Order: sequence, then structure tokens, then C-alpha cells
Amino acid sequence: GATDWPSKSTGTSGGRLDIIARHGFPALDTIRVFDNFILAYDRRHRTAHWVLEHMSREHLDADHPYDRSGIEFFEDHVVHDYWRSTNQDYHRSGYDRGHLAAAGNHRRDRALIAQTFILSNIAPQVGKGFNRDVWNRLEKYVRWRARRSDNLWVCTGPLYLPAREPRDGKLYVKYEVIGRNHVSVPTHFFKVVVWETAGAYDMEAYVLPNQAVDDRTALESFRVPIDTVERAAGLLFFQRIPRHEFRSINGKSV
Amino acid sequence: GATDWPSKSTGTSGGRLDIIARHGFPALDTIRVFDNFILAYDRRHRTAHWVLEHMSREHLDADHPYDRSGIEFFEDHVVHDYWRSTNQDYHRSGYDRGHLAAAGNHRRDRALIAQTFILSNIAPQVGKGFNRDVWNRLEKYVRWRARRSDNLWVCTGPLYLPAREPRDGKLYVKYEVIGRNHVSVPTHFFKVVVWETAGAYDMEAYVLPNQAVDDRTALESFRVPIDTVERAAGLLFFQRIPRHEFRSINGKSV
Ligand SMILES: [Mg+2]
Ligand SMILES: [Mg+2]
Repeated sequence: GATDWPSKSTGTSGGRLDIIARHGFPALDTIRVFDNFILAYDRRHRTAHWVLEHMSREHLDADHPYDRSGIEFFEDHVVHDYWRSTNQDYHRSGYDRGHLAAAGNHRRDRALIAQTFILSNIAPQVGKGFNRDVWNRLEKYVRWRARRSDNLWVCTGPLYLPAREPRDGKLYVKYEVIGRNHVSVPTHFFKVVVWETAGAYDMEAYVLPNQAVDDRTALESFRVPIDTVERAAGLLFFQRIPRHEFRSINGKSV
Repeated sequence: GATDWPSKSTGTSGGRLDIIARHGFPALDTIRVFDNFILAYDRRHRTAHWVLEHMSREHLDADHPYDRSGIEFFEDHVVHDYWRSTNQDYHRSGYDRGHLAAAGNHRRDRALIAQTFILSNIAPQVGKGFNRDVWNRLEKYVRWRARRSDNLWVCTGPLYLPAREPRDGKLYVKYEVIGRNHVSVPTHFFKVVVWETAGAYDMEAYVLPNQAVDDRTALESFRVPIDTVERAAGLLFFQRIPRHEFRSINGKSV
């Protein structure tokens, strides 16, 4: 129905919702609540609009090795079948089933890892050179940050950005849709990261093209002003923290 | 903030909200409430996601001629300036500022007509052959229906539909964006109409391409199954009326 917020789902949410969303929801859509992440489902694109995660050291440090073997991607049955993406949609599409909330962020517990395999948390990503390479490098960087801070929040999502066509000089958005359910293939993906260390907040924003990227490209080269992502994504990030209260944004003192 | 529903706006809403939305909100987004229509704003496309209107005879019959002269299009200042469309965006774009809630549906009162000129209710439409022709013809048909029923509801919105490219046989969504604020030019528009006559409900759904259409094309040729629009728009229409309770859908007995 219309009031499907917050629609509980796999796993308990309890007090986690409060901490994950402490700095505000980026927007109010069809919200899905999991143990360590929340997502807003985008019915037209058949993937998430945004995914918000919280991490701290204890989420990443386990006394067992990280093991996602045998975990299968599964459909989100809370989403109406008109808009639900399926494994079949991705089959032979040429794209990976790319995690938005990264499986490795939830390594402490296999049940938490398994939650990230819900297809609402998945978007079509170029495999070689992107999902398996530069995007994975960005995910690892975020975990590196989380291990060195008291709390970390990361908001991840797809973008559908315009490009100018030389033919007529006009701007067009163009993206492929795959499978029977027309799952959109984003042109780009964003991550906006906020970490808290001894009460101080730092923030960084990244936008990467959904394409093979030279492995030697530094992650810093994908940093963009926060408002660039906000304009394109239709979201406001971590708005409950006034911008002037950040210690740094994109590596520069505020 | 996140809980911007229902964000009251121009005009009083009062009990109108209840009647306009009696059969359910199509979705829960950034909702804007006007006297005779409600809309959900789509921050990424910088136009409405859907607009829901209610009409009855008394809304259409006035003792004065319909006069929209001198009414200007105006920006929606409730929308953050990151996503707000402006008159400048449409200027020299080649597109009309096309009404979603039609001005003529609110002809009883110039103040009600004026509300429809808010740019959140406007989308880029091809002028000649579409906005000024076949789309106008559909709007007039809806009013004709409203005059012959006790109540009429109409949900209108843009669509961004994929097309197959012969080059590679794949499906792509492609649309232009105009102006500094990148207002999306929809590939299609839909209208889903429900009217009530002596307690019986009838429904029709239309999808029209945002392009010049031969004036001799019958409106019936644009009728599509309700679920076709629902899948593409990410919406469920009038879901509080069970489908088997309709007298007719798209002219066929249910
Ligand atoms: Mg991945
Ligand atoms: Mg018009």
C-alpha cells in the first residue's frame, strides 16, 4: 500500500534503524529495512534508488575468515512482481549483479552477508574493470576508513547522467534496460561516505562511470562536490549534520 | 526534511485531499497538495512523477467563460533549487510547457486555474501535433466524461520508455534533458481515468508518444492495458477499488 515505510523485512531492525538513519533519510520512497542497511527501492528502474549502511570496527573484525561461498542472490518478494528484478533478468545480460551495500561490509556474520544478496540491493554493473576492480577498490577503501573511525555511514546508489551528443549538441540520458523486467543499467554509481572520529565528522563523495576503468586510476580522481551528486541523484546526504560542522569534505578542511 | 508528506502548499487542501486520494496514493514521494490536484515531484526528472485530479460537473460549469489569459508559469519554491525547474529551462528548448493537470479542468475559478501553472505540474511536451493537438483532444475527452458522471479521477504523468536499437538488438531508454536544471523530456505521457456514475466505476488508460501525431488518429488507438502503465510508471492506479468491481475497463465489461 501507500504507507509502506518502514516495511520491515529480512532480519530484525530494532535500534539499528535509528543509528543507520541518524543523520536523516536521503528521501522517502519504498523503504526496506535490513540489519545493517536500509534501501529505497526505485520501482521504475527495478533497482535501489539509494542504500544507506552503517559500519564500525566490530562489524568488520571477525574471528573467522570472510566467506560468501554458496550464498545465492534472491528476489525481493516485498516488491510487487511488476517491478521486481529477478536473476533471470541478469542472465546473459553481460552485466554482473553488483552489490550496492557491499557483502564484505557485513562479514561478521553470514546471515548479514546473505541479506546483501537480495536483488533490491543489486544493480547491473560492468564486471571486468569495474565491479571486480575499481568499484571493489572503492569498497575496500571504505572499509579501511571504517576500521580507523568510531562510526562510518555510506550511501550508495545508481545515477543516470546525461551526455552531450555531437550530432546536435543536445544533452541526452541514455541507458540500457535488461531482461523481461527491464532492469536499468546505470550510467554511473555514487558513494557518499561520512566517518566519525572522536566526535569529528569527515565526508567524501565519489562518482564512477559504469565501465571498465584503467586500474592505475587513483580513487581521488573520482571525487566530486557533494552537491553534484545531490543534484543528479535527487537526494540530500546526511543533512542533519550542518555542513560547517564537518572537519573535512573531500579532503579539504571546512 | 524526510517527512515532507503531506506538504501543504498553495491553496487550502482541507477535505479535498480525502476525496482526491480516496482510492489510494499511487506512490509516496514528495507530495504537493493543491485544491483540486495532488502531485508527486520527481527530483531526478525535475517534473512530476504523477498528478492526480478529481473533477465533477460543478468544477467544469462556470457562469463565466474559461479565461487563462495573463496567468504566468511560476517556480515551485517548495522544491529545493537543486531540482526545481524554471521558465528559463524551457526557454528556446523547442518544447512547450505542457500541463499535466490541465488548466481547463479547473476553469470554475481563476485561482484554481493559476495553481496548475506551477512548474511542478509542467513537463516538456512537443507543441504542434501533441500538446496543442492530440493531448488537448484527450484532455477535452476527459472533461466530456466528467460532465457525464458523478465523479471523475484522472492520474497523469510522464513515461520514459525503452526502444530497441536495430544496431545491437538491445533495449535502451533515451531522452533529452533541457536547460540548466536538466529537465527530462518524457518519451511518452499516460492518463488513467476513472469515472463514477450512479455507483458504478469505469476505467480507461492511455499512453501517447511525446511527438506530433496525425490529427485523424482516434484516441482509442492509444488505449493500453492498465498494468502496462503500472509496470512502466512504477505506480498502482486506484488500487482501493478491486478490479472486479469495475463495470468496464478500456471499454470492455469486467
Ligand atoms: Mg561488487
Ligand atoms: Mg497542454
